[in-house]
Amino acid sequence: MALMKILILGMDGYIGWSLAMYLANKGHQVSGIDNGSRRQNVGSIDSTSALPIKSMHERISAFKKIFNKNISFYNGDLLDYNFLKNVICEILPDTIVHLAEQPSAPFSMIDREHAIYTQHNNIEGNLNVLYAIRNESPESHLVKLGTMGEYGTPNIDIPEGFFEIEYNGRKDILPFPRQPNSIYHLSKVHDSANCQFASRVWGISCTDIMQGVVYGSSTAEVVSTSLFTRFDFDESFGTAVNRFCSQAVIGSPLTPYGKGKQKRGFIDLLDSIQCLRIAIENPPDKGEYRVFNQIDEIYDIIQLAEYVMKIGINNYGLDVSISNIPNPRKEREEHYYKVENNHLRKLGYKPTRTIEDTIDTMINDLIPYKEILTQYKKVIQPKTLWDDRKQEKLTPYAK
Amino acid sequence: MALMKILILGMDGYIGWSLAMYLANKGHQVSGIDNGSRRQNVGSIDSTSALPIKSMHERISAFKKIFNKNISFYNGDLLDYNFLKNVICEILPDTIVHLAEQPSAPFSMIDREHAIYTQHNNIEGNLNVLYAIRNESPESHLVKLGTMGEYGTPNIDIPEGFFEIEYNGRKDILPFPRQPNSIYHLSKVHDSANCQFASRVWGISCTDIMQGVVYGSSTAEVVSTSLFTRFDFDESFGTAVNRFCSQAVIGSPLTPYGKGKQKRGFIDLLDSIQCLRIAIENPPDKGEYRVFNQIDEIYDIIQLAEYVMKIGINNYGLDVSISNIPNPRKEREEHYYKVENNHLRKLGYKPTRTIEDTIDTMINDLIPYKEILTQYKKVIQPKTLWDDRKQEKLTPYAK
Repeated sequence: MALMKILILGMDGYIGWSLAMYLANKGHQVSGIDNGSRRQNVGSIDSTSALPIKSMHERISAFKKIFNKNISFYNGDLLDYNFLKNVICEILPDTIVHLAEQPSAPFSMIDREHAIYTQHNNIEGNLNVLYAIRNESPESHLVKLGTMGEYGTPNIDIPEGFFEIEYNGRKDILPFPRQPNSIYHLSKVHDSANCQFASRVWGISCTDIMQGVVYGSSTAEVVSTSLFTRFDFDESFGTAVNRFCSQAVIGSPLTPYGKGKQKRGFIDLLDSIQCLRIAIENPPDKGEYRVFNQIDEIYDIIQLAEYVMKIGINNYGLDVSISNIPNPRKEREEHYYKVENNHLRKLGYKPTRTIEDTIDTMINDLIPYKEILTQYKKVIQPKTLWDDRKQEKLTPYAK
Repeated sequence: MALMKILILGMDGYIGWSLAMYLANKGHQVSGIDNGSRRQNVGSIDSTSALPIKSMHERISAFKKIFNKNISFYNGDLLDYNFLKNVICEILPDTIVHLAEQPSAPFSMIDREHAIYTQHNNIEGNLNVLYAIRNESPESHLVKLGTMGEYGTPNIDIPEGFFEIEYNGRKDILPFPRQPNSIYHLSKVHDSANCQFASRVWGISCTDIMQGVVYGSSTAEVVSTSLFTRFDFDESFGTAVNRFCSQAVIGSPLTPYGKGKQKRGFIDLLDSIQCLRIAIENPPDKGEYRVFNQIDEIYDIIQLAEYVMKIGINNYGLDVSISNIPNPRKEREEHYYKVENNHLRKLGYKPTRTIEDTIDTMINDLIPYKEILTQYKKVIQPKTLWDDRKQEKLTPYAK
């Protein structure tokens, strides 16, 4: 396998930094861009990373010291086209991994300003990436991070991007209809449509990743606290399993939303970066647009809470309980959910470990930072409502 | 039928002004917003309206003088949320008709700046409209102008927004997949998804109009040149039939793109405003999101050129010929095309006149302005290419 020049957009993020270290250790030549917005956005809702993270430059230096591998970093914003163009012209990357978006559904739903910020930042940043590839580096393979949430929860199987439809006696292969459920998820659907167009009309090679919910606190490269990737646990940027583990550590009840019967696809942080590496090292044909449904397993939310409770009590003697709370979102709470995800498996993806093992590791990783979690515990409970119910008027959850 | 308070966003446009006069004459209380961007954008490509149009204020005064009906006008931009909010709070309209978008596919494809401008203006303007309705006027019915181009040209029938799909033995009713073919058409798809979400989650009542290509130079209210609506004939803002009629009047060959076998749905300007009135006067249920495929008939482009040629020669003795030119766009040139469009017919829509009659009227309306068309004739030929072919390297059209 040829070593590659890889540019990671959003390298300061949860997946971005994990991926940068992993690919650099595989021998790839890794560069990254970030504008620091994730740190700012998390700060703006009075939260922080549970695992204390160093600056981008400090982490790159620590990584160099420990592994003797270089990672380059460019501080700037995708909305600044000249900045982006100059970096791409300098590197001429084989692959551009685009992780540099506002990734939170609740953050996008806070109010009009957050909605506009999310769609503006995500759509226009991604358009700039597409134009920079088209104009400056047409051979670059774009690996674009989308989300399984683009599909919503249809009452039929979810294929990998496209499927054959028969209607009124005629057939065609068409994109699978999207039913996103937040302003953020909508922005990802818009990105996907823009990428598909750029591929069809300009011949851009694109892997569009429909990723499940990611969980996990560390990867093989995190051999020192100086290399931590961020770990969010607040209502906006923390994902379900990560928040449950945080609640377990500080002795707060785990709080599934509503009935907790919502099904989603999940994937370990370790497997997320494994899958991204597989996509990078096995590029599509020139001009091809392909979709990968990047999930490992499907779980009910309540099932995950039960895993965390069991492991917290049995392995760590923690005081863990589950207490469903009214659902701040508008979503189906009981529904069919089946996802086709063979593309990555065919290219060699194998899950690294079980979710129980990872939950155990997460609790173990978080216990030393219990004080931070306790100090910031009020950010875990949801305050952002999807509609115009008043907080105090939320229908209480009835078992 | 109760008279209504109607706010037209984009009242200075081709359809906007025609609709304003028509609804005011039906007795509705009409207000409008515009930021003048259509005039600026047409000016920026060195073009103009073939029929000379007065300022918004002059047209409103002339209309008042002739018909003794008031139309209110607010000069401002949908991207200025406070402006929009204040107008909506002042009027509390029964219906908001949103026509205030950058409507040209070629304009959006000029370069990155025009692409960003189009998606920024259209998506964020529409998001502001959705938030203004949600926050300030939740009873307002939003009539949002989209385009048949959102669907692209699938090899199966196009339903009205939604259809039942069977896949792997299960069924669901889902949005029909969109395959838009320009940055502009993509912006309309993004708008539609945002509107559908706003309806589902916030309970906004929305009629999403998938409109065909509009043609025509005047409506019943244009009894004086002081009431003209704009008539564009350039490559960006002029639609196919309107450009063919302009070419016929100045003795230039009519120039279908490529084979000219592209099929599209078309609708007369008279019927466009008739259909919008029907949508306005027959609102959906509270919180309903419905889609109308607003077309009259489907034609090949070449068929329309032949109508214009025949009428130009036979009725006006013009020197008209047809000369296909290389296609600047990337699109299917021979394809299946069938569209379901019963929703408006069920509510009473009946086409007003034949396309031949309208072509005759258009040529008649344009002949007095032959000098303007001649002066600006170079804007008719396409210069904007969909991909990276060089202008001089376009594959010549082969019959």
